[in-house]
Amino acid sequence: MLEHTYAVIMAGGGGTRLWPVSRRKRPKQLLPLVEKRSLFQSTVDRLRAIFPPERIFVVTVAEQLEAIREQAPMLLPQNLLVEPVPRGTASVVGLAAAVLARRDPQAMMAILPSDHFIRNGDLFALLLRVAFDVAEAGYLVTLGITPTYPATVYGYIQRGEPLPETFFYPAYRVLRFKEKPSEAEARQMILSGDYSWNSGMFIWRADRILEEIARHMPELKRVLDEILADWDTSRRQETLERLWPTLETETIDYGVMEYAERVAVLPASDLGWSDIGNWDSLFNVLLPDEQGNIVFGGNHLPLDTSNSLVYGNHDGRLIVTIGVDGLIVVDSGDALLICRKDQAPRVRQVVEYLKQHQKEEYL
Amino acid sequence: MLEHTYAVIMAGGGGTRLWPVSRRKRPKQLLPLVEKRSLFQSTVDRLRAIFPPERIFVVTVAEQLEAIREQAPMLLPQNLLVEPVPRGTASVVGLAAAVLARRDPQAMMAILPSDHFIRNGDLFALLLRVAFDVAEAGYLVTLGITPTYPATVYGYIQRGEPLPETFFYPAYRVLRFKEKPSEAEARQMILSGDYSWNSGMFIWRADRILEEIARHMPELKRVLDEILADWDTSRRQETLERLWPTLETETIDYGVMEYAERVAVLPASDLGWSDIGNWDSLFNVLLPDEQGNIVFGGNHLPLDTSNSLVYGNHDGRLIVTIGVDGLIVVDSGDALLICRKDQAPRVRQVVEYLKQHQKEEYL
Repeated sequence: MLEHTYAVIMAGGGGTRLWPVSRRKRPKQLLPLVEKRSLFQSTVDRLRAIFPPERIFVVTVAEQLEAIREQAPMLLPQNLLVEPVPRGTASVVGLAAAVLARRDPQAMMAILPSDHFIRNGDLFALLLRVAFDVAEAGYLVTLGITPTYPATVYGYIQRGEPLPETFFYPAYRVLRFKEKPSEAEARQMILSGDYSWNSGMFIWRADRILEEIARHMPELKRVLDEILADWDTSRRQETLERLWPTLETETIDYGVMEYAERVAVLPASDLGWSDIGNWDSLFNVLLPDEQGNIVFGGNHLPLDTSNSLVYGNHDGRLIVTIGVDGLIVVDSGDALLICRKDQAPRVRQVVEYLKQHQKEEYL
Repeated sequence: MLEHTYAVIMAGGGGTRLWPVSRRKRPKQLLPLVEKRSLFQSTVDRLRAIFPPERIFVVTVAEQLEAIREQAPMLLPQNLLVEPVPRGTASVVGLAAAVLARRDPQAMMAILPSDHFIRNGDLFALLLRVAFDVAEAGYLVTLGITPTYPATVYGYIQRGEPLPETFFYPAYRVLRFKEKPSEAEARQMILSGDYSWNSGMFIWRADRILEEIARHMPELKRVLDEILADWDTSRRQETLERLWPTLETETIDYGVMEYAERVAVLPASDLGWSDIGNWDSLFNVLLPDEQGNIVFGGNHLPLDTSNSLVYGNHDGRLIVTIGVDGLIVVDSGDALLICRKDQAPRVRQVVEYLKQHQKEEYL
């Protein structure tokens, strides 16, 4: 069964929540953020410990293809799928599932974001092993993250009864998906003990997810069939580029998972997971020094500085902080962010402002 | 009498308290700090409104001579005196007084720092006018600044009885000079109402200050006489360079003023004076915007930012601040200072650290 398992990395995103370091042309997953490797590279590393290269796929966009190849030269060129334009995760999942199912009717796939941080790679591998067992039994499996605080930026998954089968690990039916809650709702959900964060990591049989796509997003299934009909012909690229833009932009969560049959969750604690959705979240996954500081990029001179993040630009600029607590300082060379820690999500507002004022050079 | 009045600007200092903008080779007085002109240029502007160019002198050091010429091309080359090596303000005052007395036996001089900010130039001119009257009567006049807070970084001057003469402005005998006090002492002095800050601005007859130098620093007087004996010969430079390094380094305050006869003070309020001894002090002389922010150098995007100073590097770098209050952000290009407002004096410690660790490129 394991020879039918595949990993699919979704690496097309363009998040700017780590502005000013993340930019349109330097998306989050391609930045050397932790451990001097990019989140994408860390994701590939994690998966190479589990899968042979021929069973690791990447779905990306044209602008990022070159960087993807540079950062992960061991990936097979034919395993890099390129979206002509972004159309949401439902389309990405559908394309990957259709391509895999065509190649291997028994294919099972783990579909994984490229821009998440996972500290505990061993636990991740073991969870994936169990998840494929659950998926083989026909479930659509989500990895759930046990919440550590009442986050309002994640979706939540409510678990129901344990699955009737035995998998050496607790696995539950999903009762419902709850999109980003208010803080009060989030507190309630954490107290109930029934909820996990939706990590966006899914494991399933390719045929099962295609079946659910056919049921809940029939137009997507129809287009995928049409694309796949030309997949092994000289018209592959032309057909893909013609049909892809006609697709509705939708996430797999909203488009399929909320309505699908036989959805299961494996709750994971201690995975050391973060989607690094803003600068503040680095404090949750990296170990700060004795003063609570996290420093990247070398040339920092702290006086009486605590609980702060300093991200230097590797160009030798000296950054001196005096009498500073709970501050985020990010120097990207052409832009400098100085932000109170609890205000880190407002970086989005900056990016919005820059868009509105056509400050293209900073986007 | 007014044709015997001279202004002497002391422009040899190398303060680094405005690090990282002020450096050994870019001392504070030569930086475009306020009103887009340097403090030295503002000082010259202020004095040109009062004195003809031939009666404005500058004492500087060799490394700064070129910048001085560039910033104030209207000054006469023969009026620029160059210290071979820095030997404190007593020597500077002595040399200027000796040169002026030789040129004009009735010379009266105002000796003024080049790195102080004065908002109210009109009041300054009027004070100087009165001070020369007081000086003509034989007093050594100091301009005293009425304290606005219990500063521990300035010297204080205690005033005694009003002078017996009438000068259209209150002028007092000086009872004593008190060097930088503790905060408790400073509070006491402010409450007493008898004290002014010592601004380091002095007005006197050249012959009177030379008389006091002869009495309290006889060795300085002896060397000055020897230098002046060769002043109008081809040996001027050689003699100056040979004898100057033998001088003791001393301030005019410690060396002469504390012991001199007939010392007077003119207390000044509302002069808008600051020695801009650290970044924080800019808040005392510049008018912040509605949010209490002071911004130099253009490209600043504030979100929820208040009571902060942002000094950009004029190279177009975008500086974004979010949720920040009472912070000082200074970008000098190769170095970046982020400092809580009340910690601004600790910039000194940074400079000390850089010296100790031979980080010459940042000094």
